[in-house]
Amino acid sequence: MTRNELINNILKKKSFLCVGLDSDIHKIPSFLHETDDPVFEFNRGIIDATADFAVAYKPNIAFYESIGASGWVTLKKTVDYIKENYPDIFTIADAKRGDIGNTSKLYARAFFENMDFDAVTVAPYMGEDSVKPFLEYPGKWVILLALTSNKGADDFQYHPDDGNSLYKLVLNKSQSWADKENMMYVVGATRADMLSDIRKIVPDHFLLIPGIGVQGGSLDDVVGHGMNNKCGLLVNSSRGIIFADNNKEYARSAREKTNELQRNMEAHLYKRGIL
Amino acid sequence: MTRNELINNILKKKSFLCVGLDSDIHKIPSFLHETDDPVFEFNRGIIDATADFAVAYKPNIAFYESIGASGWVTLKKTVDYIKENYPDIFTIADAKRGDIGNTSKLYARAFFENMDFDAVTVAPYMGEDSVKPFLEYPGKWVILLALTSNKGADDFQYHPDDGNSLYKLVLNKSQSWADKENMMYVVGATRADMLSDIRKIVPDHFLLIPGIGVQGGSLDDVVGHGMNNKCGLLVNSSRGIIFADNNKEYARSAREKTNELQRNMEAHLYKRGIL
Repeated sequence: MTRNELINNILKKKSFLCVGLDSDIHKIPSFLHETDDPVFEFNRGIIDATADFAVAYKPNIAFYESIGASGWVTLKKTVDYIKENYPDIFTIADAKRGDIGNTSKLYARAFFENMDFDAVTVAPYMGEDSVKPFLEYPGKWVILLALTSNKGADDFQYHPDDGNSLYKLVLNKSQSWADKENMMYVVGATRADMLSDIRKIVPDHFLLIPGIGVQGGSLDDVVGHGMNNKCGLLVNSSRGIIFADNNKEYARSAREKTNELQRNMEAHLYKRGIL
Repeated sequence: MTRNELINNILKKKSFLCVGLDSDIHKIPSFLHETDDPVFEFNRGIIDATADFAVAYKPNIAFYESIGASGWVTLKKTVDYIKENYPDIFTIADAKRGDIGNTSKLYARAFFENMDFDAVTVAPYMGEDSVKPFLEYPGKWVILLALTSNKGADDFQYHPDDGNSLYKLVLNKSQSWADKENMMYVVGATRADMLSDIRKIVPDHFLLIPGIGVQGGSLDDVVGHGMNNKCGLLVNSSRGIIFADNNKEYARSAREKTNELQRNMEAHLYKRGIL
């Protein structure tokens, strides 16, 4: 998917919401365990209920990998289901992969050839040749970790504690590897106050913002510090949507939560003159 | 596996060799494609031929993931085969995972519960809570990326270019998360000259050293700068062993290469008074 197509979908749906499909098999409603593929049935329920209000889905790969081989079948079925039924939805493999060049190439094959994800999240620790293989697929995106939403982000990402912290170096250096047409950055919503600084380095790039909801980030803060004149945001919520309810009504509850977030986002888009 | 057990296996086998099972389905001998599970048959051939001379096997997960769901079946069969037939071999899932706490927990479940690996490689970018869930399994190990063997290591791992580079901070800070009994570090053989500096920070820890062979690292340099009085090294070779030959004799060629490396290692262990 191109950047323009993504922007058009945001304008059309009046939403920049990404729904995180962190579909933990131990947390989905128990009645689904009677089906052949409980996690897929759960995902299908969530997707059908929320696709009106979301522009992206982001399965976190750990939740599928933790089931074993059948989890990979479920993952592929999920991305295929989205592509077939909601072709304008942007799909993100939240995999946080990254290895030496010949190995990253294989990870890229997994997510961009065997499966048809639009984007994959990549960890920057190993540098340029660990990221480049993912960039060789036209129309596909790398979403590079910059400043994450967890407490451990403080351990290394702010090092050294001056104007040239690691996360800033990641933002600066990676711009020579790819541009705003096929690179985004992960910036945690719990770091919303840092977004103004980040926007000085990457004014035009899309940012993927996890951490809204259970992790405590605020949509207003994220928009206030991070939105640019093309929106430039994909804001993710996972547990707050998909586990809003744990019974037969889980999909309806997810739809309500999603609709509420979408309405907030629509208001922000109007207020900023983007709609 | 405990640190003492690992050391005893090194002394018994007179080897600190780790064989990297980077078993790319597109590179294995063509006659194997007639079997039901070509990559597993390839691995079994390599394992049976080299287990006399190796103390560890390290499948790089990308090579299995790139095949799709059946690759995960192959991976599990491979680690099960090692555990059943060579229970004193240390098994490493070279996965380079790392995510927020509740997600790393799921990755740990994948490699330590669903599969019975002894260790998993972890990328440190997201800090302590991304690493801790892997440390909650008694007898299991985290092998944390410190200084990698690829060119891109220069991009971030040496930042800033003073006495407090990122890789040194990783080595220092992570010692408060775990000790030498369940944490090792990845240090690329192509950075052998840095090993003396690294040994000042982690004198007693095991180091996993990739990059011997195709990537250009030298065993003599690694031993010279990195060996401690308990050996403290697992030196990995992947392509140089498993793809030494590409015909029906691939396993025999792998055995010869492995035996050659083992003999070199034995000489080093004698010279250092460890044997």
